[in-house]
Amino acid sequence: MTRPRNDTFLRALLRQPTEYTPIWLMRQAGRYLPEYCQTRKRAGDFLSLCKSPSLACEVTLQPLARYDLDAAILFSDILTVPDAMGLGLYFEEGEGPRFERPLREEWAIRDLTAPDPFDRLRYVMDAVAEIRRALDNSVPLIGFSGSPYTLACYMIEGGGSKDFRHIKGMLYCRPDLLHRILGVTADAVTAYLNAQIESGAQAAMIFDTWGGSLSASAYREFSLAYMRRIVAGLIRERDGQRVPVIVFTKGGGLWLEEIAAIGCDAVGLDWSIDIGDARRRIGDKVALQGNLDPNVLFGTPETVAAEAKNVLDAFGAGDTGHVFNLGHGISQFTPPENVTTLVDTVRSYSQLLRK
Amino acid sequence: MTRPRNDTFLRALLRQPTEYTPIWLMRQAGRYLPEYCQTRKRAGDFLSLCKSPSLACEVTLQPLARYDLDAAILFSDILTVPDAMGLGLYFEEGEGPRFERPLREEWAIRDLTAPDPFDRLRYVMDAVAEIRRALDNSVPLIGFSGSPYTLACYMIEGGGSKDFRHIKGMLYCRPDLLHRILGVTADAVTAYLNAQIESGAQAAMIFDTWGGSLSASAYREFSLAYMRRIVAGLIRERDGQRVPVIVFTKGGGLWLEEIAAIGCDAVGLDWSIDIGDARRRIGDKVALQGNLDPNVLFGTPETVAAEAKNVLDAFGAGDTGHVFNLGHGISQFTPPENVTTLVDTVRSYSQLLRK
Repeated sequence: MTRPRNDTFLRALLRQPTEYTPIWLMRQAGRYLPEYCQTRKRAGDFLSLCKSPSLACEVTLQPLARYDLDAAILFSDILTVPDAMGLGLYFEEGEGPRFERPLREEWAIRDLTAPDPFDRLRYVMDAVAEIRRALDNSVPLIGFSGSPYTLACYMIEGGGSKDFRHIKGMLYCRPDLLHRILGVTADAVTAYLNAQIESGAQAAMIFDTWGGSLSASAYREFSLAYMRRIVAGLIRERDGQRVPVIVFTKGGGLWLEEIAAIGCDAVGLDWSIDIGDARRRIGDKVALQGNLDPNVLFGTPETVAAEAKNVLDAFGAGDTGHVFNLGHGISQFTPPENVTTLVDTVRSYSQLLRK
Repeated sequence: MTRPRNDTFLRALLRQPTEYTPIWLMRQAGRYLPEYCQTRKRAGDFLSLCKSPSLACEVTLQPLARYDLDAAILFSDILTVPDAMGLGLYFEEGEGPRFERPLREEWAIRDLTAPDPFDRLRYVMDAVAEIRRALDNSVPLIGFSGSPYTLACYMIEGGGSKDFRHIKGMLYCRPDLLHRILGVTADAVTAYLNAQIESGAQAAMIFDTWGGSLSASAYREFSLAYMRRIVAGLIRERDGQRVPVIVFTKGGGLWLEEIAAIGCDAVGLDWSIDIGDARRRIGDKVALQGNLDPNVLFGTPETVAAEAKNVLDAFGAGDTGHVFNLGHGISQFTPPENVTTLVDTVRSYSQLLRK
């Protein structure tokens, strides 16, 4: 496999010089795109869309056809791994993900095993391979997984939660059981991400959506430690190319130094932190990815451009080591034309800053 | 009015020596207490409970009868001010607060005025006076309000929100309109808190529940600036006693230095920050309040005690300037006996640390 023709994203993650600041958007293939909604309708439901390699490939490519993005990200659900563990993932319309069998009983926790990704998650690997073929070395493909703590939140709560009282109850009553779940899940995530890399993913991202709901000490013990273990177990070079790893803890702004030290190449930032402050804190140890508030995309085109420039200026005029992104997934209510403004502004302004 | 017999809480807020670390709990009068549920049933619904001074007084005192707490906090809803502005507050069972008339039209925003707290919010002032009489100078009474940005979230969204897209849309499209809402609301909150102080509240707390959903620069402009304005307008001395002010931004850990500089006496902390780190960052400029994860109360009694001691140790053995609290309101599912363990541990261990 050769390097993609546009490898700006990969170079920025490795803090090598780039001609401009690369950009992609979390959840860039999503409901704000009418073409996505059409494919999803054809698929029948969200899970069928995820489980069909050809449809997953189709929606992965849609944002790249519209916008000048520097990376594709595998279209999939964050909960494929627990689903493959047998928890029974389903979606209630308008209710988000649910598990038929939430993980709360000691016997079920003892029985939990890491699934073989080439067996129960074959559909994901097929999607990765199909997307790589379709991309034809234009831009790199990012593989991803949820973090063990984030997956465990859904596995134990049985779905989304406002207060996480079941997992926190386990954390403070039976930490041994939670560690068991997290250990198995970390093994599963490592194998899952490595399978994606073997199938063609050229970078990997770990989404720790709920680690930020923990106290500092609990975060270290129950989320960060398991992400460190995953990062240590990942394939980091493939076909002579470095495979960069991005770690993103939403609400993790207080712990950036610690996150940057777990062996990853880049740290994702939500929008609550000034990216200049983040860079001053962690120096040039890792690259940074982020961090525009996705709600800026509800603004006027002038505001979108101005706020994007603010992020670029805050990181440091024209410096490398920055991948532009939102601080969280793009909203389904985003006007697609504002994304054009964002992508074009980041490209042209960051080119200008380098001159 | 004389100083309460137990003024540990007030002294800690002013960083004066205390014999132990005082404790109270956000939402300490709430659904985890069976006696609260009984009173609420008698009231008929939540809003009737808030609007009846004698029932509000009754539930305010309930946790004090059970636990050795060092402060009472006025029982009321965070949305009384927008309700008094005419937005029509109501509660859907299990759905949280809603407004009949969300604030989105320019004409309605232009028409918005700050209500006279002794007129439209008389019931709150009557409750404050009645609680003070009932407390009979045992412990101090805390008055409170939501921050302008937090109130504006509910006013514009029309209720709770996951993404705050209406208020953020206004922020990034029509910041002038949002500033108009926040200005009127800041005036209303200032008058509301001053009326509570004139009616007998001996400390005031501003709850900025949603400021943490903003970017750093937007937080400064749309939340912090208005809290600064309120703090500057508050009555700070009454009957020869200092009236301390606590400011709490949930998710504001990155901005502590700036929050501590707006003129308040104490900063509230959620549980995501190590309270020792917080203290190292802001020094002895202000007192700190917090910051146990409320979910610790789902743990075993041993864990509750151990985690409480961790917070006390992290702040600094036996030092003054700490008010123990949770990092967020107590959950309705909390076992009441764990609160006994918490309160007793904080009292006895902090006494021991001072020896």
